[in-house]
Amino acid sequence: MTTTPSPTECQDRRRRSLAELTGRKLDALLVFHLPNVRYLTGFTGSNAVLLLHPDRAILFTDPRYRLQATQESDCALRVAKGPLLVAAVKASRRSKIRRLGFESARVDWQAIENVKEHLSLGASLEPVCGLVEDLRRVKSPAEIALIRHSVLTTSEAFRRAIRHARPGIPERDLAAELEYQMRLLGADRPAFETLVTSGPRTALPHARSSSCPLSANRLLLVDMGASQNGYASDMTRMAFFGRPGPRVKRLHRAVLEAQLAALAAVRPGVSAAAVDRRARRVLRDHGLDRAFHHSTGHGLGLEIHEAPRLGKGEKTRLAAGMVCTVEPGAYLEGLGGVRIEDTVLVTQTGCEVLTPTPKELLLL
Amino acid sequence: MTTTPSPTECQDRRRRSLAELTGRKLDALLVFHLPNVRYLTGFTGSNAVLLLHPDRAILFTDPRYRLQATQESDCALRVAKGPLLVAAVKASRRSKIRRLGFESARVDWQAIENVKEHLSLGASLEPVCGLVEDLRRVKSPAEIALIRHSVLTTSEAFRRAIRHARPGIPERDLAAELEYQMRLLGADRPAFETLVTSGPRTALPHARSSSCPLSANRLLLVDMGASQNGYASDMTRMAFFGRPGPRVKRLHRAVLEAQLAALAAVRPGVSAAAVDRRARRVLRDHGLDRAFHHSTGHGLGLEIHEAPRLGKGEKTRLAAGMVCTVEPGAYLEGLGGVRIEDTVLVTQTGCEVLTPTPKELLLL
Repeated sequence: MTTTPSPTECQDRRRRSLAELTGRKLDALLVFHLPNVRYLTGFTGSNAVLLLHPDRAILFTDPRYRLQATQESDCALRVAKGPLLVAAVKASRRSKIRRLGFESARVDWQAIENVKEHLSLGASLEPVCGLVEDLRRVKSPAEIALIRHSVLTTSEAFRRAIRHARPGIPERDLAAELEYQMRLLGADRPAFETLVTSGPRTALPHARSSSCPLSANRLLLVDMGASQNGYASDMTRMAFFGRPGPRVKRLHRAVLEAQLAALAAVRPGVSAAAVDRRARRVLRDHGLDRAFHHSTGHGLGLEIHEAPRLGKGEKTRLAAGMVCTVEPGAYLEGLGGVRIEDTVLVTQTGCEVLTPTPKELLLL
Repeated sequence: MTTTPSPTECQDRRRRSLAELTGRKLDALLVFHLPNVRYLTGFTGSNAVLLLHPDRAILFTDPRYRLQATQESDCALRVAKGPLLVAAVKASRRSKIRRLGFESARVDWQAIENVKEHLSLGASLEPVCGLVEDLRRVKSPAEIALIRHSVLTTSEAFRRAIRHARPGIPERDLAAELEYQMRLLGADRPAFETLVTSGPRTALPHARSSSCPLSANRLLLVDMGASQNGYASDMTRMAFFGRPGPRVKRLHRAVLEAQLAALAAVRPGVSAAAVDRRARRVLRDHGLDRAFHHSTGHGLGLEIHEAPRLGKGEKTRLAAGMVCTVEPGAYLEGLGGVRIEDTVLVTQTGCEVLTPTPKELLLL
């Protein structure tokens, strides 16, 4: 498995970005968002600006990253000591760029204000949103391989760490163990703050792992994911210490049914909102529609949250090569909450659930 | 130890921010940067905007955080479903705000562009940089207690994890162990990506922990810090497997001498640049001035990098209550690098080194 994109792959991505620019009547684009820079160049450093121009792409970084940038990217390299954006705008003056696009949702207001004086007189800065992000929605085979690897790390870390779960230990200690196992399996870091909640706290979908102890005879929720070679994975599983009562069993079964229904709806051409509706309909049939108050899923890749969102009003049509989570949930104050989440690849004919971990309520 | 700021403390911080606003002839301020929002309100959620106004402060967040915001903050609360910035600007229309400041380096260009149409006709948006950040430089006794706690977690995690260090294990496994121990000791997360490098890789100050094995008869560098109750700590220590040769010993002794000299220079009234010069002078005397190519230190608190920077040209005068790192280093290609870093509190008469871990080259 190759862990960095090939020069050919990056060139192709830049070529497709440039085609988008032409459609918007732009001469060049300033790329600030680091996952976008990484996507287009292969460079993984923490300080970079890319000037994407029909003739060539110039990568700007600071002296710390000189060697690394040469190793990771085939772009022309400029090492600058001051603000990279100023250096990039000055470079744009040398090419006859009149309409210079910039990622307007990925740069702070002050930075654009500061750079205006360096623009050539005949040139203008033009805001651009989501151009590279849209290209990133469909993953290449190499990217899919990396996401598979990240998913397997998450599942294996869960298998190893869940053995340590027992009533009485603090939620955050189990979260620490899960993150430790992901790291030992090669993860760069957790893709997001690992969430372990127990008992009534499982009903708070955005609670954080706390010093509260895991409770006997209660639900346990684990929401975790690795970032490995830059690519994210995301999984939620439910466990129970002891023998669950009928209400807990019914809640879990209802959410699982909703999750399987949503998975069955995932295929090329279907809208993201339609997948969301499928999960919602099943939960409504169980009287749980008001207990489900988030989206059914989100894309993931170089970032943990990417397009498309699988939620109400989201018109994006799914396409083969997209990767997203499917994660309906239902949260009942007092009893607790259940969420079941897989990382899923849209295929030519439907979808492949990448997450291998069983989805049954795990009895501990 | 109180882990959240008291309402009185937050009110006092807001009062001091408002005094700054008056000096700049502004009627109100939009605060976006989450550490600033936390500082002024106590709220720790991941989505918030604060409208700071002489009569009152209004905290805007989304429905997920309704309960949490009420528990954590004494500010007036508005729960909004759409973009918080739009909700805040609309609210500003009801008070007669004409000059509305906004944190221009902490908001993306597009968000400000989108909100302009919601501004009342007689009002203007005015960029503001570093206002709250400047107030945050001097820490309160409660904040200092939290930083002390975070520092002790870092040092104790180092003590526990370093036992597991032995030649042959990958750098990233030791990093995982250090982070695991910090988590077990109550850290929310590592304050930054834990850095473990070995052998010649210690000479790359921005290398990341890799799958390279720890080497026998080589230097080992550990740069780590906890984020606990929101507050950061930062420490670098050096170890060696076996018996170091004379060049390694001399390198370590020179950097330690520079670190002690810089510490001796830390006191109220001295400029940040002067502390940096002290470290640089010692290294120059050892012929190592060109081997030291970063700043001597940085402030820390709610963020791992805050003002003041202890580097060339930095005119900020140190004041009692500031907390910063002191971390000179020297990096020699082939031999390796040495950095020694403490977290330090500026006191009335000089400084207190908060980090209790011994600074000698640790022989393993």
